[in-house]
Amino acid sequence: MFLDADMNVILIEPNELNARNEVTLEDRRAEHIVQVLQGVEGQSLRIGRIDGPLGTGMIRAVGKATVTLRCLFNSEPPPRPLVDLLLALPRPKVMKRLWAPLASLGIGHIHLTNAQRVERYYFDSHVLEPDFVRLQLLEGLAQAMDTRVPQVSIHKQFKPLLEDQLDALAGDSLRIAADPAATQRVHQAVGNQPDQQRVLLAIGPEGGWTEFELQLLKQHRFELVTTGHRILRSDTACTALITLVYDALQ
Amino acid sequence: MFLDADMNVILIEPNELNARNEVTLEDRRAEHIVQVLQGVEGQSLRIGRIDGPLGTGMIRAVGKATVTLRCLFNSEPPPRPLVDLLLALPRPKVMKRLWAPLASLGIGHIHLTNAQRVERYYFDSHVLEPDFVRLQLLEGLAQAMDTRVPQVSIHKQFKPLLEDQLDALAGDSLRIAADPAATQRVHQAVGNQPDQQRVLLAIGPEGGWTEFELQLLKQHRFELVTTGHRILRSDTACTALITLVYDALQ
Repeated sequence: MFLDADMNVILIEPNELNARNEVTLEDRRAEHIVQVLQGVEGQSLRIGRIDGPLGTGMIRAVGKATVTLRCLFNSEPPPRPLVDLLLALPRPKVMKRLWAPLASLGIGHIHLTNAQRVERYYFDSHVLEPDFVRLQLLEGLAQAMDTRVPQVSIHKQFKPLLEDQLDALAGDSLRIAADPAATQRVHQAVGNQPDQQRVLLAIGPEGGWTEFELQLLKQHRFELVTTGHRILRSDTACTALITLVYDALQ
Repeated sequence: MFLDADMNVILIEPNELNARNEVTLEDRRAEHIVQVLQGVEGQSLRIGRIDGPLGTGMIRAVGKATVTLRCLFNSEPPPRPLVDLLLALPRPKVMKRLWAPLASLGIGHIHLTNAQRVERYYFDSHVLEPDFVRLQLLEGLAQAMDTRVPQVSIHKQFKPLLEDQLDALAGDSLRIAADPAATQRVHQAVGNQPDQQRVLLAIGPEGGWTEFELQLLKQHRFELVTTGHRILRSDTACTALITLVYDALQ
């Protein structure tokens, strides 16, 4: 079920639990418990119910490749992350490795969009298939000890997205868009916001937004912020900008 | 020669240039010029001499898989990045994909070190082989339009590194170390430094520094800074922390 991260919490789908709140794992989670955590009967592990609370799982039985846990979910669900992302779809190779970091950094809603400098075939890639996406997102959540799976929306037209859908999707969010030519820093645009202010961060394609797209963003209340002094690959740029937004929100 | 990034500058080794400052490329750079940039005779491209200045390359000839450039290096070399990194060696799979982002973010010297929670076999991985490392670093530099290849040192013992070598390696640098238990933010530790102040950023293994290691870091003038509110994979954490250091230095 999980691929390549530290599993700092074992995440469990609600429908995997039986009536006694027990679950028998047979996949990578079992492997992780047996091989990495060297779990033994009676041991307690950090667990989380996907989109629900964190809790404790007590190991009831360990087989060669199976683990049975008795689950107790005794904390509030983690809060929904305050930051949403509007990202011009990167190359499949880059998008593939971006899902887990995005989930680990904490994104409420990931909007992937077309743009002038996005190639249409990117949208046909298997890296956008829901099952694949979910696996990757869960990997990032397990790393970060979160349970809230980011929502994902795919928008094949940029202009209708901004003109017709954005207000419904991100009504009260502070809107910022990264642009290499901008001079305003993230801290200036995002600092001193009210508590719990949501932020929608827009990040363009590797070739940048077009002038038309920048105008459209500005018309729809996006403030432009600098991407920093170096040109970064999309995935590195996403991590950098999301980090700055959370730092400014603190 | 290059692997998987935007090539925003074509980087050329000094010894590839002939006496007339011409170079004939036959590798990924030629591919990029022919296929991505659709270069034609007479066209000018951004180039850089590795560890030297940026400049302009004029295409003299284009073959099916070869490109000949006449090179003019007419700008100062980019400044040496102000940030150095002391990183507990991550798993090979993570280290492999970290080289290019580190070079693109701008690191002067990358010190990889052992630590209690680093597995010894990580040091035997092919992802530390100099040729492989250089390829990855050049990829990151080409992305970020830089020419300065980060220096890389590998330290198999943490204590002697801190006690005997650190002052020679990073004498006047401001020293900070990321620790999940710390409360001081990067901005607090790094803000208000003199212009051109160098910073040495230490990032521990995925399991964290041990108490002994933290004490040793503190004894050697490292201030502890928080890693933020989420547990991130080493590569994501590196990008996040380096971004915050540069933001604080601005």
